[in-house]
Amino acid sequence: MSTKEVDVVIVGAGIAGLSCARYLLKKDETLNIVILEGKDRVGGRTLSVPLKTDDGTNTWDLGAHWVGRCQPHIMRLVGELGLKTHEQCIQGRKFLQIGKDNSVRSYASDIPTLPLLDLLDLDRTMKKLDSLAREVDQNDPYSHKRGPEFDQMTLQTYLNNTCWRAESKELMCIAVRSTLGVEAHDISMLYFLTYVSSAGGLKQLTEATPYTAQEYTIQGGTQQISLKMAGALGNSVRLGEPVTSISQAVDTVTVETGHGNVYICKKVVLAVPPNQIGKLTLEPPLPTIKRELYKRMPMANYVKIIFTYKMAFWREEGYSGESVTSGGPWTAGAGCICGPLCFTFDDTSANGDPALVTFVTGAQAVEWRQQTAEVRHKAILETLSQFFGSRVNEYVDCREKDWDEEPFCEGGPVCTAAPGAMKYYADGLRKPMGNIHLAGTETATVWAGYMSGAVQSGYRAAIEILANIRPGTVSQEDIDENNKPFKRSNS
Amino acid sequence: MSTKEVDVVIVGAGIAGLSCARYLLKKDETLNIVILEGKDRVGGRTLSVPLKTDDGTNTWDLGAHWVGRCQPHIMRLVGELGLKTHEQCIQGRKFLQIGKDNSVRSYASDIPTLPLLDLLDLDRTMKKLDSLAREVDQNDPYSHKRGPEFDQMTLQTYLNNTCWRAESKELMCIAVRSTLGVEAHDISMLYFLTYVSSAGGLKQLTEATPYTAQEYTIQGGTQQISLKMAGALGNSVRLGEPVTSISQAVDTVTVETGHGNVYICKKVVLAVPPNQIGKLTLEPPLPTIKRELYKRMPMANYVKIIFTYKMAFWREEGYSGESVTSGGPWTAGAGCICGPLCFTFDDTSANGDPALVTFVTGAQAVEWRQQTAEVRHKAILETLSQFFGSRVNEYVDCREKDWDEEPFCEGGPVCTAAPGAMKYYADGLRKPMGNIHLAGTETATVWAGYMSGAVQSGYRAAIEILANIRPGTVSQEDIDENNKPFKRSNS
Repeated sequence: MSTKEVDVVIVGAGIAGLSCARYLLKKDETLNIVILEGKDRVGGRTLSVPLKTDDGTNTWDLGAHWVGRCQPHIMRLVGELGLKTHEQCIQGRKFLQIGKDNSVRSYASDIPTLPLLDLLDLDRTMKKLDSLAREVDQNDPYSHKRGPEFDQMTLQTYLNNTCWRAESKELMCIAVRSTLGVEAHDISMLYFLTYVSSAGGLKQLTEATPYTAQEYTIQGGTQQISLKMAGALGNSVRLGEPVTSISQAVDTVTVETGHGNVYICKKVVLAVPPNQIGKLTLEPPLPTIKRELYKRMPMANYVKIIFTYKMAFWREEGYSGESVTSGGPWTAGAGCICGPLCFTFDDTSANGDPALVTFVTGAQAVEWRQQTAEVRHKAILETLSQFFGSRVNEYVDCREKDWDEEPFCEGGPVCTAAPGAMKYYADGLRKPMGNIHLAGTETATVWAGYMSGAVQSGYRAAIEILANIRPGTVSQEDIDENNKPFKRSNS
Repeated sequence: MSTKEVDVVIVGAGIAGLSCARYLLKKDETLNIVILEGKDRVGGRTLSVPLKTDDGTNTWDLGAHWVGRCQPHIMRLVGELGLKTHEQCIQGRKFLQIGKDNSVRSYASDIPTLPLLDLLDLDRTMKKLDSLAREVDQNDPYSHKRGPEFDQMTLQTYLNNTCWRAESKELMCIAVRSTLGVEAHDISMLYFLTYVSSAGGLKQLTEATPYTAQEYTIQGGTQQISLKMAGALGNSVRLGEPVTSISQAVDTVTVETGHGNVYICKKVVLAVPPNQIGKLTLEPPLPTIKRELYKRMPMANYVKIIFTYKMAFWREEGYSGESVTSGGPWTAGAGCICGPLCFTFDDTSANGDPALVTFVTGAQAVEWRQQTAEVRHKAILETLSQFFGSRVNEYVDCREKDWDEEPFCEGGPVCTAAPGAMKYYADGLRKPMGNIHLAGTETATVWAGYMSGAVQSGYRAAIEILANIRPGTVSQEDIDENNKPFKRSNS
C-alpha cells in the first residue's frame, strides 16, 4: 500500500492507454505518468502466443489480427515502432457456404459465385448502407436526418425491409457477425451506420484486399505494438494493479487499486472497454447519459481458434484459405442448430509456418461455448474439411481463445450499441467527466473497434489533457491530423 | 468478521427474498436461514416515507405503489400480513395530453376523448397485442411461432408497422413508458408480449379500474409488506451486509460479504434485480446464457414525485387526479425537448390526507434528471396546472425519489429486455446455477415486474429448494398453486 502523486493516471495498458501515454510524453517528456493494468500483461484485446510448428514454434495472434493502409493511425505507429507487416494471403479460390441447403460454392475473384440477382441485391444493399453511412457525422450520429428512426430499429429490421433476396441478407448478417461479433438483431441500425462510417465503408471493413482492414498481419504478432510501447515506458506501467475506485476533488483525482495503492493526479484516462466502466466506484458517480449509453453497449462474442500445419495444403489445391459460412450443417446433436464457424483465413506466418485462423462469433459463439473444446474443435474441423479436405485434421497445434473469459474485457472484439443507445452516444461516449478522460477503441471516430481506433482514441485523450494541463504543447494541426479519416485519392 | 453455517442464504431483503424466507419457514420451521441485505433497510423497490400534511405527517409510497385483485400472490400475502388496502380514486374526469399540438383533453369514462378513428385504431392495436400475448408460453416465450421474428425487432418497429394513427401509437408509447419505464424502441417486441402475458393483458397492466394492477394502494405504505415479513424473521435479516462473492463447492456454497463475514450453506437465493448479479464475484462464473441475457436486460428509468395538499381541490372540480401526457410543451429551455411528466394519480391517503403522485419515466427521466430539482419540480407543476389549475403550486410537502440513485438496484421499476435477449430468456432467467437459485420480480411468470411477481418468484425459489433439501415438504399442489395465473371468470 502506497500513495503517490503523478500528473496523469491511465487505466488500461492496451493500445489505447499506451498510445495515450506515448503521445503525452512525446509532447512533454517531463510529465509524470502511471499506467495501471489489472491483468498481468499489456495489450488489451491483442494477445500473441506461441504455437507449435512443424519444426519448432512461432507466434500467432489470438486477438486483434490485421491492419491496413486504410488505417492511418495504426500504420504510422507500427512503422514508428519498427514493426513489419505481412501481406494477408488472398490468392486462390475462396469458399462460401450459405442458403437453406448449406451448399458450398468456391470462387476465384472478390465476388462470390452467387446467382446474379443475389449479387445485384447484395451490391444494392451495400451501396445503400455505404451511402447512408457517408451521411453520418461521427461527432453526432443521432443528428442524421433519419437518426431517431434508425436508432429505434435493429439492423435486422432494416435488412428485412431492404434486402429482396434471402442470400444477400444472409451475407449481410455474416458480415455483421464477423466484423462485430453480434447478430444484426442485437444492434441499432444507426450504430451500424456509425461503425461503417468510421471505417470509411463496408468494403474496407469486410475485405482483405489492398487498402482494407484485413490487408496485413504484423510479423511476430500485434501484441508487440503494446509490448514495444510499454517497454519504452518502463516502470510507469504497473501490471496486476486493478483500479477499483476513482474520486474527483476540485483539481485532483484520487485513484485506488485493488491492492490499496493510491495515486493522486491531475488527470485520469479510462482506456478500458465501456462495459468495464460500470464496475468502478466513481465519485461523483457516472453521469446519467453515460449510464444510459453503457447499459446499451454490451461486449460482443468472439472466439478465435488457430490451427498450425506442416504444409499449407490448401494453397497447393489453389485455395486461399478464406471461407465464409453461416455455420453449415451440424448433425451430431449437442443442442446446436448449426455448425460453429463464421469465417477463416490463411494465417501462415511471414517466415512460412502454415496455419489457418478460424472464427466463431455472435450467437454461434454463445451456443458453441457451452460445448467441450473437443466437440467444438471437431465441429470446426468438420466444416473446414468440407472446404479444404480431410487434411485439415492433421494439424500440428491448435490454440483457442474465447474472449468472453478474458478479465477486464469480458468479450470481444468490441462493445456494440443496442437500439436506443445512439441518443446518448454523442454526449456519452467521448465527453470527459471532469478530469476523467475517455479512450479505448469504442471511443474512436476513425476505425472504432479496431487497433487503429484505439490509437486514435489514445491520442485524442492525450490532446484533451495536454490542452488543459500543458497548453501550447498541442496545436490545431495536431488535432486535425488526429481526426482526419483516411481517404484514398481514387475512392 | 465471522463464519457461520446455515441452510439457506437469501441475498436481498426485498419482497422476493423475504417471501422466499417466509415460505421456506412455513414449510419447515427448523430451517436455518439468513437474509443478507446490502442496504440499511428492507423493502427493495418499495419505500414508504413520511410527508407533511396539513396538520401533521402521513406515509406515502415512493416505490411500488399499487396492488389489485388480479394479482393473487400479493393480495393473499397482504391479507395474511393483516394489511389493509385502499381503493384508488378514479372517480371524476381524467386528462389526456397528446398530439403535435399538446392539446389537453378531459374525459369522464375509461375511454379517452379522441377522434373515433384514433380510438378504433388503439383498440385494434391493443387487441392484436393481447391476442399475441395470450399465445406466449411464460416458460418458453421464444418458442412462439413468431418468437425469433418478434425478438429481433423493437416494440417500436412493431408499433410503427401496426398503428395506423399517430395518436394511437403515441398512447401505446406512453403505456410502455408508464408501465416499464422505457421507450418502446428500447425493448424486444417479444419481451413486451411476455410481460403483457404475465399480467394477463394490457388492460390489467394499464388501468386503475377493478381487477387491474392499479386497483388498490396499501394503507400505511407498501414497504410494510417487507417490514412485517422481516419483523417475523427477527435476527435472520442482516442489514448493511452487501454480498460480494459466492463460490460453490460440491454440496456447499460459501457466501462472503463486504464486511468479510462468511456464510457456508446448502442453498443460496439471489433475490436481487438481474442488473446486480453481474457485480458479484461468482465461482464458477455466470453461465454464458445468463451473461447474454443480463447484458441485454438493463434497469429502466423511474422518478416518482409526490405532492401533498391541504385539500383535494381537483376532486372539487370533478377531476379524478388522473392524467396521462407525452410531456407537454416545455419552453423554458434547459435543453429538454418536452415536459417531464408521464402520468399522475390521486394519492390521497386512506384517512383523507390529499396528495397527487406524479411520474417521470423513460427517456424523459434521463433528460430531466440532469436538471436541478427546482427546475424539474417547476416544470412538473407547470404541466399539472394545465390540468388541475394553479392550486397545484400550493402544495404542503413534496418528496421525490429517483430510483436511479438507489444502491443495489440502480433504476426502476424493472429490468427490461432489449432485442435479442429472449433467445436466452427461458434458459437464462429462472434456471438455478447449481445451488444458487434465482428470485426477484423479473423472474416471475405471473405479474413479472410487480410486487405480486416478486412474491411468486420468492415462493417458486423456496419450492425449488425445499424439493431438494426437504423433499416431502412441498407437493405438486403447492407448485401448481404458485404457478396459477389469475383468471377472472368473466374475462
